[in-house]
Amino acid sequence: MSNRGYPLNAWYAAAWGHEIQHRLTPRTLCETDLVLYRRSDGEIAALQDACWHRLLPLSLGRLDGDSVVCGYHGLAFDPHGRCTHMPSQETINPAACVRSFPVAERHALVWVWMGDPARADTATIPDFHWNADPALAGRGGTFYSLQCEYRLVIDNLLDLTHETFVHAGSIGHDSITRAPFDVTHDERSVTVQRWMLDGDAPPFWARQLGRDVPVDRWHNIHFEAPSTIVGDVGVAEAGTGAPQGDRSHGVTGYFLAALTPETATSCHYFWNFVRDHHLDDPNWTEYLHYAHVNDGEGVYDQDKAVLQAQQIAVSKYDRPPFYNLNIDAGAMWARRIIDRLIAAEETPPAGEQASAPSVFARQA
Amino acid sequence: MSNRGYPLNAWYAAAWGHEIQHRLTPRTLCETDLVLYRRSDGEIAALQDACWHRLLPLSLGRLDGDSVVCGYHGLAFDPHGRCTHMPSQETINPAACVRSFPVAERHALVWVWMGDPARADTATIPDFHWNADPALAGRGGTFYSLQCEYRLVIDNLLDLTHETFVHAGSIGHDSITRAPFDVTHDERSVTVQRWMLDGDAPPFWARQLGRDVPVDRWHNIHFEAPSTIVGDVGVAEAGTGAPQGDRSHGVTGYFLAALTPETATSCHYFWNFVRDHHLDDPNWTEYLHYAHVNDGEGVYDQDKAVLQAQQIAVSKYDRPPFYNLNIDAGAMWARRIIDRLIAAEETPPAGEQASAPSVFARQA
Amino acid sequence: MSNRGYPLNAWYAAAWGHEIQHRLTPRTLCETDLVLYRRSDGEIAALQDACWHRLLPLSLGRLDGDSVVCGYHGLAFDPHGRCTHMPSQETINPAACVRSFPVAERHALVWVWMGDPARADTATIPDFHWNADPALAGRGGTFYSLQCEYRLVIDNLLDLTHETFVHAGSIGHDSITRAPFDVTHDERSVTVQRWMLDGDAPPFWARQLGRDVPVDRWHNIHFEAPSTIVGDVGVAEAGTGAPQGDRSHGVTGYFLAALTPETATSCHYFWNFVRDHHLDDPNWTEYLHYAHVNDGEGVYDQDKAVLQAQQIAVSKYDRPPFYNLNIDAGAMWARRIIDRLIAAEETPPAGEQASAPSVFARQA
Ligand code: FES
Ligand code: FES
Ligand code: FES
Repeated sequence: MSNRGYPLNAWYAAAWGHEIQHRLTPRTLCETDLVLYRRSDGEIAALQDACWHRLLPLSLGRLDGDSVVCGYHGLAFDPHGRCTHMPSQETINPAACVRSFPVAERHALVWVWMGDPARADTATIPDFHWNADPALAGRGGTFYSLQCEYRLVIDNLLDLTHETFVHAGSIGHDSITRAPFDVTHDERSVTVQRWMLDGDAPPFWARQLGRDVPVDRWHNIHFEAPSTIVGDVGVAEAGTGAPQGDRSHGVTGYFLAALTPETATSCHYFWNFVRDHHLDDPNWTEYLHYAHVNDGEGVYDQDKAVLQAQQIAVSKYDRPPFYNLNIDAGAMWARRIIDRLIAAEETPPAGEQASAPSVFARQA
Repeated sequence: MSNRGYPLNAWYAAAWGHEIQHRLTPRTLCETDLVLYRRSDGEIAALQDACWHRLLPLSLGRLDGDSVVCGYHGLAFDPHGRCTHMPSQETINPAACVRSFPVAERHALVWVWMGDPARADTATIPDFHWNADPALAGRGGTFYSLQCEYRLVIDNLLDLTHETFVHAGSIGHDSITRAPFDVTHDERSVTVQRWMLDGDAPPFWARQLGRDVPVDRWHNIHFEAPSTIVGDVGVAEAGTGAPQGDRSHGVTGYFLAALTPETATSCHYFWNFVRDHHLDDPNWTEYLHYAHVNDGEGVYDQDKAVLQAQQIAVSKYDRPPFYNLNIDAGAMWARRIIDRLIAAEETPPAGEQASAPSVFARQA
Repeated sequence: MSNRGYPLNAWYAAAWGHEIQHRLTPRTLCETDLVLYRRSDGEIAALQDACWHRLLPLSLGRLDGDSVVCGYHGLAFDPHGRCTHMPSQETINPAACVRSFPVAERHALVWVWMGDPARADTATIPDFHWNADPALAGRGGTFYSLQCEYRLVIDNLLDLTHETFVHAGSIGHDSITRAPFDVTHDERSVTVQRWMLDGDAPPFWARQLGRDVPVDRWHNIHFEAPSTIVGDVGVAEAGTGAPQGDRSHGVTGYFLAALTPETATSCHYFWNFVRDHHLDDPNWTEYLHYAHVNDGEGVYDQDKAVLQAQQIAVSKYDRPPFYNLNIDAGAMWARRIIDRLIAAEETPPAGEQASAPSVFARQA
């Protein structure tokens, strides 16, 4: 039984689409170094970033057309990882290859499948259509490198009571900790829903609403295993029917969080926040961006400080489990689902191979 | 048998009294993170610096009256470590607590007991009354963080022949290595005494004495297990009876060293030097301070360089014991006493529990 | 069977002769800290850089004549490592010593024998006479610290096809990867020879030859176990008989590389390049030096970047062997010879002691 904290048979966000051009971009996913590049036909290639020959990172080489040429002795690999050129020899060793990974671009993100390629079904890429919805506006494309394992961020986003303590002064509010909440789940997802009725709005929301009146506020957080979260959050004038579905007197924002394990104690955080109001006003885009990301002062910066301090403690203490409060119901279910996915990869069905192949096992 | 290099059933200096105010101060003792703060009644609280809930350091939270509110989800703990508030729930899990540590303020220092609370007897706090003696003067309150284990500092202070080599030009003198010395010890303490009769005084002492005449010089170093040392050092005009107890023709200084294990390879060093002359002259206070602590040039700075280099070597080599010279007799006894204290904690008397409880075992 | 990647019974370059003066110079060889100094008679002493008493690096002490005085308690050691003075005691413990190492100065380099002193035969010091040949000129004495194990550098130098990819624009040329090459070896050495006939010269060589004409180019690389390489490289006007031994229409350079394991993942690289033309022109000396070593732009700087990136990958991946291409024949033989030398040290001949003594085992 491994100590991996993440399943491999999953689509993980590896980059924002705009990050990947016709040049070599290294990135580590699930403790595996990858090199990503856009081919001439616009598709994206994802290869293991270690030359078959003597392990030099391919990202230190160069592109020759759609092939990667190693920067040490010039072995060339095509976008499928097959070696197509060896210096000083005619015959190419057919075993010479680097692992290539299934990759797909969807909703502004580049998704890579780190597990068994035979199971890579693009129909299971997480739904992030809000990232590309013309009825919504945002700056998009923020990329964080967090020195904490990805599940700490999931815990964080599935329980927004922390806003009261970590984000007092912007989005925090006592009502969050007082309001009841609902947790539902199925085999792959968890939803946490909280209504805070007829309260005053915290500054962040009052400003978006444009008036400081009593509001009905909602948190509608949806987790999909193993590591994406969509938060539907907003406020409407109290008593105008938002809980019943009428948001015409309110404003809505969606936070879109794709988390990807980098190492056992770090993760990538592809984050976006989009709004349904003032779509064409760049000042609003900037304001909402800086409310989140702002040189250590934004809401996400505050989370980052807390999460990284928590990771240091988690790595230090051997106290085994976290203790859970009522507020942790959502995170608890998310972790159970993740654990089940990992366990399934480690106990292959009778008559089948384990589904998570060794990084070097595959031959061309 | 553990590899701990220090007993837990001991009062360790955690801070100078003036350092601890009504705010959260983190400090690590014996590989355990603590948060210290002064309560409204002036007493000091010492709690484990890791929230019961999800391990965030409590020192990242804030004080609410005399309670610590965790900076993540707002759990509140009273100065005894009992949880008094949980967000979004009425009933408080009675198991929710963080460990609190016995603490006492004495002779300008804050002492914390890291072991079995039932054995924490304030009568056994090391005698450091010189720190607060009106017949003595000094600047007080210097705090060092040393990247070496605390026993290397004890070795250092119990054998002052090193002054000749490490502190040539200030307090070093060949006579130290030539003079005979006496080592006595009992179950908890070691005393090393050395008289250097009728010699010239090194510059540090000649200046304090006010004249450059032959002196009788003494080193009177007293170690109390596990980690405090008081040095009674000084010079008197040669032949005026200092060895017999008449110091009226001399000057005396006391160095007061409280050492506290921080990790297995680092320690805190609470240091003070007080004198019995020119009590009201701040220039003397400054001179004596800078003679010890002076941007890498002072006596203690020189020790720090040597001790840290030694720790690097100790961590690297697996050559098991140090080899001992005659001059190491004091250090050798100190280490034996410490080893005995550690062993006693690991072999509980028949019918009793081990005296060093697990950090997380205690429940409210 | 140990995991050492280098034999101990070998002469390793420890320093350039000019580096070692009458002062204490620390340097780590084969994971052992040494302190080197030149004695009054011009000979060089090499002692373990850890005091017998309490491990303080002797290099933090000072020289007293030809003895090293420890900077902590003043133990003195003569150039053979014998303790000649102990503070505060008359009798010197005869076991008190630090290990001393056989050392010899030859061809501008200081060579140290890290293994069994009884086998240290100066006749086996690698031949580097080119370093001191009056018919050749160069700047000499360049010292590199590389964060990679020494065998990666040997791989690098024994296969110069990498010039084409790592050093395009200076010495790289497609012909290198096309030309056939010969590999020969015996028990202690490997030679890789490559002739590139009737091609154009890369800029580095065209400039030395003084005209841009078709050339016959040669690579003649000689490895001697465990870690020295001499490269005889050059060009001559095509068809003037260079392959048959007449270099009168050409220019020759020798690169002289002495590699020394520092730790398991780092090495020292004593490098020199000497030429057989324009012997008295310092501009040529500077030009050829900067072509190699130039703030990250020189040929050796380019190698350094590749080698260190490769070491990071080697340390990270557990994929056991490198895969070999035809071009790796020379490196493959070199590694086999090294492996055999290491194995021989670990299986002592019947009736004999193992030849690699423990660092601390020797007594005076
Ligand atoms: S390491 Fe890539 S070609 Fe040799
Ligand atoms: S970690 Fe302290 S309240 Fe959650
Ligand atoms: S450590 Fe060298 S003399 Fe004590």
